[in-house]
Amino acid sequence: MTRGFYIGRFQPYHKGHHQVIEQIAAEVDEVVVGIGSADQSHTLQNPFTAGERMMMITKCLAEMDLVTYVVPIEDINRNSVWVSHVTAMSPHFDVAYSNNPLVIRLFDESGINVRQSPMFDRDQLEGENIRERMRQDEGWRELLPEPVVQTIKEINGITRIQHIADTDASGRADPE
Amino acid sequence: MTRGFYIGRFQPYHKGHHQVIEQIAAEVDEVVVGIGSADQSHTLQNPFTAGERMMMITKCLAEMDLVTYVVPIEDINRNSVWVSHVTAMSPHFDVAYSNNPLVIRLFDESGINVRQSPMFDRDQLEGENIRERMRQDEGWRELLPEPVVQTIKEINGITRIQHIADTDASGRADPE
Amino acid sequence: MTRGFYIGRFQPYHKGHHQVIEQIAAEVDEVVVGIGSADQSHTLQNPFTAGERMMMITKCLAEMDLVTYVVPIEDINRNSVWVSHVTAMSPHFDVAYSNNPLVIRLFDESGINVRQSPMFDRDQLEGENIRERMRQDEGWRELLPEPVVQTIKEINGITRIQHIADTDASGRADPE
Amino acid sequence: MTRGFYIGRFQPYHKGHHQVIEQIAAEVDEVVVGIGSADQSHTLQNPFTAGERMMMITKCLAEMDLVTYVVPIEDINRNSVWVSHVTAMSPHFDVAYSNNPLVIRLFDESGINVRQSPMFDRDQLEGENIRERMRQDEGWRELLPEPVVQTIKEINGITRIQHIADTDASGRADPE
Amino acid sequence: MTRGFYIGRFQPYHKGHHQVIEQIAAEVDEVVVGIGSADQSHTLQNPFTAGERMMMITKCLAEMDLVTYVVPIEDINRNSVWVSHVTAMSPHFDVAYSNNPLVIRLFDESGINVRQSPMFDRDQLEGENIRERMRQDEGWRELLPEPVVQTIKEINGITRIQHIADTDASGRADPE
Amino acid sequence: MTRGFYIGRFQPYHKGHHQVIEQIAAEVDEVVVGIGSADQSHTLQNPFTAGERMMMITKCLAEMDLVTYVVPIEDINRNSVWVSHVTAMSPHFDVAYSNNPLVIRLFDESGINVRQSPMFDRDQLEGENIRERMRQDEGWRELLPEPVVQTIKEINGITRIQHIADTDASGRADPE
Repeated sequence: MTRGFYIGRFQPYHKGHHQVIEQIAAEVDEVVVGIGSADQSHTLQNPFTAGERMMMITKCLAEMDLVTYVVPIEDINRNSVWVSHVTAMSPHFDVAYSNNPLVIRLFDESGINVRQSPMFDRDQLEGENIRERMRQDEGWRELLPEPVVQTIKEINGITRIQHIADTDASGRADPE
Repeated sequence: MTRGFYIGRFQPYHKGHHQVIEQIAAEVDEVVVGIGSADQSHTLQNPFTAGERMMMITKCLAEMDLVTYVVPIEDINRNSVWVSHVTAMSPHFDVAYSNNPLVIRLFDESGINVRQSPMFDRDQLEGENIRERMRQDEGWRELLPEPVVQTIKEINGITRIQHIADTDASGRADPE
Repeated sequence: MTRGFYIGRFQPYHKGHHQVIEQIAAEVDEVVVGIGSADQSHTLQNPFTAGERMMMITKCLAEMDLVTYVVPIEDINRNSVWVSHVTAMSPHFDVAYSNNPLVIRLFDESGINVRQSPMFDRDQLEGENIRERMRQDEGWRELLPEPVVQTIKEINGITRIQHIADTDASGRADPE
Repeated sequence: MTRGFYIGRFQPYHKGHHQVIEQIAAEVDEVVVGIGSADQSHTLQNPFTAGERMMMITKCLAEMDLVTYVVPIEDINRNSVWVSHVTAMSPHFDVAYSNNPLVIRLFDESGINVRQSPMFDRDQLEGENIRERMRQDEGWRELLPEPVVQTIKEINGITRIQHIADTDASGRADPE
Repeated sequence: MTRGFYIGRFQPYHKGHHQVIEQIAAEVDEVVVGIGSADQSHTLQNPFTAGERMMMITKCLAEMDLVTYVVPIEDINRNSVWVSHVTAMSPHFDVAYSNNPLVIRLFDESGINVRQSPMFDRDQLEGENIRERMRQDEGWRELLPEPVVQTIKEINGITRIQHIADTDASGRADPE
Repeated sequence: MTRGFYIGRFQPYHKGHHQVIEQIAAEVDEVVVGIGSADQSHTLQNPFTAGERMMMITKCLAEMDLVTYVVPIEDINRNSVWVSHVTAMSPHFDVAYSNNPLVIRLFDESGINVRQSPMFDRDQLEGENIRERMRQDEGWRELLPEPVVQTIKEINGITRIQHIADTDASGRADPE
């Protein structure tokens, strides 16, 4: 039995993420999906809470024929202990998937097997682009799996992003 | 659709916890299981990591006919924000189940619907008793669901508890 | 102009605290009242939030003819920086009042002028005794200034203490 | 009785802030003034300590005929619990005033009554502009209430800002 | 070249610690001495600051013919990342020495070579016993290396311990 | 006996730092070298761990005829307590050396004797420039003392910096 680990911030979970997990699923028996920056929400870069992201992802994975674990992982802001933090929060895994050179480096220095994760169409699908489309409420639905569109609707996600975007750049709740 | 929330430390997940979730399952459509003190491990009170506990619980819940979410929740050590912390980490829930008067109080002060959780046979099944039996490696298997026994075996859980029990009372890694 | 500093947890603010401040008021022009462990609440030792304690104290001090500042001070859990933490949070003061030997020591090592604070009738008035009386809802009213009794009534303080007292010893929101 | 809540960083407290509080005072009986980022000081964006800001504000409010509470509030860096943090630190309030869309959003999602705060002349009075004038020691006195000018003089505030401005952009005490 | 790692709280550094390091020195070429709970001071269990302990240890090791590194290590309160924290703070080491079963366990689970450290006469030399003798200012000098006695004298260590011992059990700076 | 304190991040320790310490050595009997941001590593600005930096510095100082202490100092992110943090972590010192105006200001406000540190050739030797040369693996060796070049080789430092530089700007382990 092989278990793979794949981490992202999933702000929001989009079709690119979903393709990656489908390709990982072809290589392993079980997948752990780590939700990074789980403690962050209500900012331009991280609009959704960990619980909201968990709901998006779990609903999308339910359609797949694969044992999955979805694990929110709070930031620890200390690269040297990040791998131990992740491995303690997650069910044991045999291989980590990532395209982030730092993540690859950290797993590698810790002696954990790490593979380049399959690529998706980055131009169309990267998170920052999608969040900008959501702010304008235009052209974002087709980039997300249907259950994610549904969740965003239920939590009034578009309004939240628009409110946050009006705030000063710090993305913090303290006004001048 | 009604979603219930049930939190515990699950050190380890035992038959009493499982009975409670079965009874909750009769009242709601989906259950969120929160793993408290997710950042703690390798102490007498919290021997297992969040990832290990997640594995125990997920395997036991797989046998049930119920949509479930398993959410590790790190301690925040500040009762006044604990409810917000939990609700941000968890998929939205309509009712929280607990027997802990403080937890009931905190949810209540936050205006969240909270119900007394069904009781299990506390004498036999409380965590402290089970951990003591594990330390002596005697009479603990019958108190845990089979997948939990299996997980504990895979991670050498009994040896870990015995090692920890030999350590001084502080349960901290700094020796004198 | 001389400003004095007096710190306590004020769980709750009682007549003994009030006497101390009255005596300090005879020696200085202005008093800063620091509310310690401001981040703690809903435990047996710290039942009330910083905001609730601030309300109790401000109302009692309003009756006095003295310029006062009430400053909530979060725990910093590191004795070596505690004095800097306090002096940064508080308006500048010339003398600190305390009976706690550690506090006296820390101010002293930092070169801050510190005086033994006037004593009140400790047997009757210490916080632990008062909280126990509140738990039993008997004999606590006469030990507190009238505005404090009023505040506790408004926030259902007695019920909160009774709920907390029913909880296991850890005083933490994570149930077994 | 109605109590309003108004939060800012007040670096420094200026005539615009004062006008806002005067207008709020017309709508409520008591005002809580929250000092945000209370743990930050000695940076370009946050030159003054919480205690220094408390002194500035308290002196200005003393002239008003209104019950006020001044509450330093440390950053908690987690938007999802920010409202609980604020409500635990502050005396109970009925309505929050803010122009910050994120703050409005967070209070709104928590079910707390929030109103657009009255606007002041932003061009002249925003904090960043004032701090730049203070760095050049030119044209800042007329933008601040007299007690604030006095406090800045007592603590050598202009020299501090000039020293900080010479430091590298990080605003942190660790040199290269 | 072999480098060994030995960790303690060294409150204070005593002859037993020194014997252990002498014995480790016979097995390795270089020794890293980790000062645990470096962030704690001014409590009964941790009376001395990291800097004071560093001075004690460095002076004692200067007499030995061995390359040594003295590394203060702050508590991280999360056993699962403790080993990564230690290895990032310390020069690389090949073997860790400890008698603490938890420490041994944690290094072992991380795949780091760990050896039982040589034992000293625990009855006479354990830290708690020595601190009690220091509180009574009787019979402690003969248990400590001469440079440690000297350092304690310079920093008025006995008076500090006596002041701290008068404080209530919490060992915290917040008075009732 | 006079002890001086000199702090830097030493990412990496270069010939400019070494010259400064040599000049300080002419003025004092002992030098404490504080390693700032000790908790940070594996980022473009802070590529090396505290332990790696400690090794670089200790080896270079071994060649000098001077008693030295090397002290890793974790960030505390609160300027108002930074000086107490440093003085608790470090052996007692009589004078601090710095060119950083904020550091000079903080020591000055705390009443600690602080001197402008001797200047080195900033154009050639500043850390950012050296790290950029390391990324390109060109022209960096001549700017570092020989033992530092050796340490960087042993830990594959160039490869690490190149990996980190490929990562997105945040320098954090969470991928999109």
